[in-house]
Parts: sequence; C-alpha cells; structure tokens
Amino acid sequence: MLIFAGLGLYDLDDISLKGLKAIKNADFIFLESYTSKLSGAGLDQMHERYGKDIIVLSRQDVELEPEPILKAAENGVAVFLTGGDPMVSTTHADLRIRAKDRGIETKIIHGSSIVSAVCGLTGLQNYRFGKSCSIPYPVHNWFPKTPLDTILLNLKQNLHTLVYLDIQEKQFMSIREGIEILEKLMEDSSESIPLFVGVARAGSDMPVVVAGTGEKLKNIDFGPPLHILVVPATLHEIEKEYLKDFAWYVHQ
Amino acid sequence: MLIFAGLGLYDLDDISLKGLKAIKNADFIFLESYTSKLSGAGLDQMHERYGKDIIVLSRQDVELEPEPILKAAENGVAVFLTGGDPMVSTTHADLRIRAKDRGIETKIIHGSSIVSAVCGLTGLQNYRFGKSCSIPYPVHNWFPKTPLDTILLNLKQNLHTLVYLDIQEKQFMSIREGIEILEKLMEDSSESIPLFVGVARAGSDMPVVVAGTGEKLKNIDFGPPLHILVVPATLHEIEKEYLKDFAWYVHQ
Repeated sequence: MLIFAGLGLYDLDDISLKGLKAIKNADFIFLESYTSKLSGAGLDQMHERYGKDIIVLSRQDVELEPEPILKAAENGVAVFLTGGDPMVSTTHADLRIRAKDRGIETKIIHGSSIVSAVCGLTGLQNYRFGKSCSIPYPVHNWFPKTPLDTILLNLKQNLHTLVYLDIQEKQFMSIREGIEILEKLMEDSSESIPLFVGVARAGSDMPVVVAGTGEKLKNIDFGPPLHILVVPATLHEIEKEYLKDFAWYVHQ
Repeated sequence: MLIFAGLGLYDLDDISLKGLKAIKNADFIFLESYTSKLSGAGLDQMHERYGKDIIVLSRQDVELEPEPILKAAENGVAVFLTGGDPMVSTTHADLRIRAKDRGIETKIIHGSSIVSAVCGLTGLQNYRFGKSCSIPYPVHNWFPKTPLDTILLNLKQNLHTLVYLDIQEKQFMSIREGIEILEKLMEDSSESIPLFVGVARAGSDMPVVVAGTGEKLKNIDFGPPLHILVVPATLHEIEKEYLKDFAWYVHQ
C-alpha cells in the first residue's frame, strides 16, 4: 500500500488528523524533499514527533530509482510525505502510476496548499486566478520566457497569476530573485508589471505579505523561505481593502 | 480574537492539528454552512467530537447580521469553521475586514481544498488549469452564460476548468444537473464540450472520479454530495494514463 500524504503548508501541526494516523500506522515513511519543504520543521523534529525512521528522497530517488519505494509499498504500508498537497507536482502522479502498474494499492490524503491558501493570505479571489506559472533558476544563464508570457496573458484577461518560485535542494528562490528574473525578461520590451504581492512563510503564525511595485518589493527583507509571488490583475474594491488591512501595502 | 479555520475536504479527520487545537481552545465555535459542507460528518458528530456548542451560520448570519460573531470574538476566542480552506469565498474575506475594522485580531488556519485536491483526484496538472467558474441554480429560469464562456475560453487556450457546482442550504447541485445546465446553454450553438471529469466526495476514502462525454456522465449515479466537475483541455500523455488508472474512464 502506498499512501501519498500532504504535510500541509508550514510545520508539523499542518498535517490533517488523517495524515497523522497514516504515519502512525506506517511501516515505512518517505519524505519527498524537492518539490516543496516544511519551512517550520526540520527532519529531527519529525523523527522526534513520529518516533520512526524517515527516508528522505531526492528527485532522482523518485523519478529514476523508485524501486525502494515500490518495494516498501509491496511489503507493508508506505507513506510518502510531501509539503502542501501531495499531487500538485507531475512527478508524484508518475510514481502513483508506476505503483498501479505493479499492482500496489494507492491512496491520497490531502493537505493544505498554497494553491488555495493564497486567497486567504492576500484576499485575492480564487475565481480571478488564471493559469499559474513557475520561475526556474536560470541554467547556463538561459532564462525561459514562459512565466512572463503567462503573467502578461493573464493580465490582458484581467486575471491574477500565482507565480511559484524555484525550489532546489539547498536553494529557495526569494521574492527578490523572482522579480529580478521577470524584470530581466522585460528588458528591451514595453511590457511592465505594475503590482506584485509577495508572500513569505504561508501557513506560519507570522506570514509576511507585502503588495507593491517590483522596485519596492525588491528592497524588502521577507526573511526565510518559502516565498511565492502573485501578480494581481486590477484589484476589486474588496481585494484592495483586504490587502490594505492584512498586507503591508507599500504605496507607490 | 477571530480564527478562520478550514475543516478540510470531507470528514472530521480532515482538519489539521492546528485547527483542532484552535477548536479545543475556543470559547465560541461557529460553523459556516453555506459555501461548503463536510459531507462525511454531521453536526451531532461534531458536537460529540469537540464537546462544545457549535453555532451554525447561514449566509444571512455572516453577510447581513455578523454582530453575534464579532461580539463573541471581542469577548473571547471565536473559531469560525468552514469546509475546505476558509478564504476561498469572498464572503469570509468580508467578515475578516469587518473584524479588523472593529479592532479584532484575526488569524487563518488553512485546510485541504478541492482547489488543489482536484489534481490528485484526476491527475490533471495544476499548472494547466485556467480560471475556474461556478454553475448556480437558475433563478426564475434564468441561466447565466458566464460559466460556459469561461470553459470555452479556457478550452481555446488549452486549459482545464474547475467547475464549482451550486451549494444551497438543502440542495447540492449534482454532476448531472451541472452538465444539463451547460448543455442547455450550448443549445442552438455550434459549441460543444468533448470531455468532462466528474468528482464526487473528494477527500473521502472512496471518491468517485469518472471521465467521459456529457451524455455518458449524465447516466452515472455518482452518489451523495459534494460533486464537482472539471472540463479538461487536450490531455497530456501522463494525464490520460492517470485518468485511465485512477478514474473510471467511460470510453466514447
């Protein structure tokens, strides 16, 4: 049996009761560490809380060498933990398909995710979000233009964009880095993004949410990861009020 | 203090540990019953589990007469429970603003939501979803065309659409009703929707997920609420495989 369980947004108390029960009944616990991250809890705390061994998985372990995970799931109950909700990344869908091919029963236990949490954090309405995008760290100084295209197309349709920032093994893209990459992509063009909303440490007791121009936001210290960005469309009255009430609105 | 806490998707075990702690420490518990619903748990079970009074709120209680909620939050710790993640609906953003205006401290505890869960349930990739839409029950036989417009615009851009189905006090729109309304809107037009995915009881141990034409899906008994619909764009290879593996794919 292979159970995909979401840890939720930030620390060890963000998992659901269902998720915790699954961990307690598990024979094997795997922690996927490359698509998300619990910023508010280290591996030591997890060990201590669960009283069990936790096998940390890299992207390679999941995508190229999943044999140990599948073997474990054939021999007992294996729980595959991820930050947020477990199936937002393609890579996990692929693992579930492989398990099915091997005749292994699978199950999903959902967790809180930035996909919906962003609405409460920023007041930006769920039904006004268009397609989301991600900004990867440039490889060999090559910056893919896709995220900018998505943002601009959404803006044209008056839709908000949730912008995921790259997560690497030991590197988490900051709001400043994300904005700098977008600005680089807009160099020599007439395009511009009038307003950003930066969100740091969603799900924690003290998330930082700031709305303002790229220029302003780049100079703000958002603190430790995870960070995400939103590019809002024209704000509705209630969205503006909410941002002013619950975000630090850097006036332009 | 007013804490907005998400109950998560389906039953009493879908809340986070943080949410449960908030309930245990609460002086007043309110349950919002009109934008979502825990299908897997009744009010009696909630009473029993939490050992506290639970005040059930209608839309009118929240939007027009929120005084008792605000008073409670001024006099102690009030927890405002909703199915899913608490701030996906505009109506709660408004309540949070009112609380702030009264000088009441507020906080959000996130929960699992269909917004991200739909990816794991259907295998449809998060980054391929465009703007979502909702189908309301027709009032005086008037069917707003907006949801269809959203779906068709997304299809043109090769994006999936998450289609929320109306939730009324004692009436939950079924997948069949949703499809029938969309078909009515397409009458006398050349538009068509080639594929639907219906999802019933997300977050439960036995969610039902079926992909197929509208004609096929209308004849399937999805069982009790909640239902939602997805209109997928052209499926990627892995999405197709996932649907075939984990959904009941009604072949066309």
